Amino acid sequence: MNKPKDQEERVTPIQQSLADAFNTAQYRLSGHGPRKVEVLKRAFEGISGDMDSDMYGKGETIEQFQREMAEYLGKESAVFFPSGTMAQQIALRIWCDRADNKRVAYHPLCHLEIHEEDGLKELHGIRPILLADSGRLIRLEDVKSLAEPVACLLLELPQREIGGQLPAYAELEVISAYCRSKGIKLHLDGARLFEILPYYNKTAAEVCALFDSVYISFYKTIGGLAGAILAGESQFTEESKVWKRRHGGDLISLYPYILSSKYYFEERIGKMEQYYLGAVELAARFEACPSVSVRPSVPVSNMFHVHFAMPKEKMERVLCSVYEKSGVGLTGNLREAEGGKSCSFEFSVGDQAAHVPAERIDEMFRQLAELSASL
Amino acid sequence: MNKPKDQEERVTPIQQSLADAFNTAQYRLSGHGPRKVEVLKRAFEGISGDMDSDMYGKGETIEQFQREMAEYLGKESAVFFPSGTMAQQIALRIWCDRADNKRVAYHPLCHLEIHEEDGLKELHGIRPILLADSGRLIRLEDVKSLAEPVACLLLELPQREIGGQLPAYAELEVISAYCRSKGIKLHLDGARLFEILPYYNKTAAEVCALFDSVYISFYKTIGGLAGAILAGESQFTEESKVWKRRHGGDLISLYPYILSSKYYFEERIGKMEQYYLGAVELAARFEACPSVSVRPSVPVSNMFHVHFAMPKEKMERVLCSVYEKSGVGLTGNLREAEGGKSCSFEFSVGDQAAHVPAERIDEMFRQLAELSASL
Repeated sequence: MNKPKDQEERVTPIQQSLADAFNTAQYRLSGHGPRKVEVLKRAFEGISGDMDSDMYGKGETIEQFQREMAEYLGKESAVFFPSGTMAQQIALRIWCDRADNKRVAYHPLCHLEIHEEDGLKELHGIRPILLADSGRLIRLEDVKSLAEPVACLLLELPQREIGGQLPAYAELEVISAYCRSKGIKLHLDGARLFEILPYYNKTAAEVCALFDSVYISFYKTIGGLAGAILAGESQFTEESKVWKRRHGGDLISLYPYILSSKYYFEERIGKMEQYYLGAVELAARFEACPSVSVRPSVPVSNMFHVHFAMPKEKMERVLCSVYEKSGVGLTGNLREAEGGKSCSFEFSVGDQAAHVPAERIDEMFRQLAELSASL
Repeated sequence: MNKPKDQEERVTPIQQSLADAFNTAQYRLSGHGPRKVEVLKRAFEGISGDMDSDMYGKGETIEQFQREMAEYLGKESAVFFPSGTMAQQIALRIWCDRADNKRVAYHPLCHLEIHEEDGLKELHGIRPILLADSGRLIRLEDVKSLAEPVACLLLELPQREIGGQLPAYAELEVISAYCRSKGIKLHLDGARLFEILPYYNKTAAEVCALFDSVYISFYKTIGGLAGAILAGESQFTEESKVWKRRHGGDLISLYPYILSSKYYFEERIGKMEQYYLGAVELAARFEACPSVSVRPSVPVSNMFHVHFAMPKEKMERVLCSVYEKSGVGLTGNLREAEGGKSCSFEFSVGDQAAHVPAERIDEMFRQLAELSASL
């Protein structure tokens, strides 16, 4: 199958010039800004040097944040992990062991399937069943049509690789009810859970109540350094700590990630609606340009994918020119699609959008519309 | 088998008072000082906020340090890992896969056997053969007497759990030569490699030349936050990156560990002889006290174990009194041995020893000798 790579790996020499144009643009419309040491320094500015390190998963520095996140997610208990890759494999392993069944089900473009070098299979011997076509969301009928029993179903909300799409909340509820009735554990890949709450108009705890286990991330829209939380019942999270040690994730000190996650969580959790509304507005403006379309057509989070009906190399030249003329950068790389006929990129609204003067954004869209029409 | 736990887990309510006495003592003779956020802040004080993050194992921030460590260890290539637990399991997995043999050999008190919740077995299906008695070092004859072929032999230098003992360098050379002749890969658990170089009077590269793969740690005597390096030939380290992603250790940003490791490596790598000589001197003074013995009797690194020929609870009261009267703390916890008849603790010389006034140290040993003689 076609395995899209993480953005950082997609840069080829030809893309370098687009990356350069993006990196040197006066403004950037997406994200929170470059990942620099400043992000760490800012988070630690107000933290006393006298604060104790966590020690192999113990101590107030880690336990307090875990309690806060458990409460936020409405779960009994939560464990901080260095990465979602580690947290999610472990969640699935625990559910598989409990069911004595090494099969799980997830979307073909699930993070575990395309970004983790098959860790789930190679380390845990778990066999995933891919539900739905890669281009659409998992539906109740997909779950009902499973030919063999699975220990766990993983749902990613929103489904990142198809632009950040979401099922209707009612569909989520029936999938959850169906899984409970069949003894299938439901796990939430909530890497971007915060970002969908304004659209669903639900609290995190309300959404998480539909799931047996939940993973959330602190370096996407929260903008922290790295780190993840895995939450569920205490027996589940206690087991996850044993696996965290087995994976080599039970570090003597995780506080660089814990304290920065806490800092940026507090700074940005209240801005998710602003980011979401910004995405809805910008998506409509992209959609209005010739040869440009967005997916989903109306965003349900702060992210969407922008598709260009022209080859990647051509579009790179167009974008370089747009950035240069408007001073506004959109992305540093494009992903090829349809055998080279089209291309796309992922757009996420963060703090930076608010700092770009409106007339620059207008100019950027004017240039984009003009140049893409002329090709 | 008897599985000693990490220090942090050994604290029981009764020990708490010893931990308190240690934590509140005016001076501490061991280590570099408490693990507090100050350790991070100091490392980052001189680092520009404008420095780029590493990105999923790529970028100058990580690659430069990896090159420096590869050179220091005399290996072709090196990879930064969040933990040694992760790095070492992966090293053994690669050697097992190459040999198509899931058996490795190591000491009964190897870190992988007693501190990692059996990750090697549970995640990698590798079956370790325990060489030597737990109370002594692995010798050439142990390796020669292996009844079945193994893919890899792991040697830990020094062998921490028995006080930090070392084989004679000549024995190491013959073990290495024997393994090469038999096609057995030799892996170095070098968690405390820096610390033994003064005793061996060798460079790191000279020691590492005897091994096919090497792991080193940055939070023991280097005193960093966390982090490890795995080094070897490029093909080996490239494979290790794939496994690092599978384990969930290929974080978007590892720079909090990388840059602090680099900072404290540069600060302390030149002090290993000072620490080692300090350990030799202090060990002799412990040994001179009644009912007290050290292991090894003459240290070969900055560490040794102090054994008391009396029950743990009694000795805790003695130590509390020693700390109180001398103002010098030695340890926050004791490990029970011989079915409760004796107890011990691990002592490591770091930066703090040099800050304790000589007359306080004299007073501490005077009190210890007096009190332990009176019991």
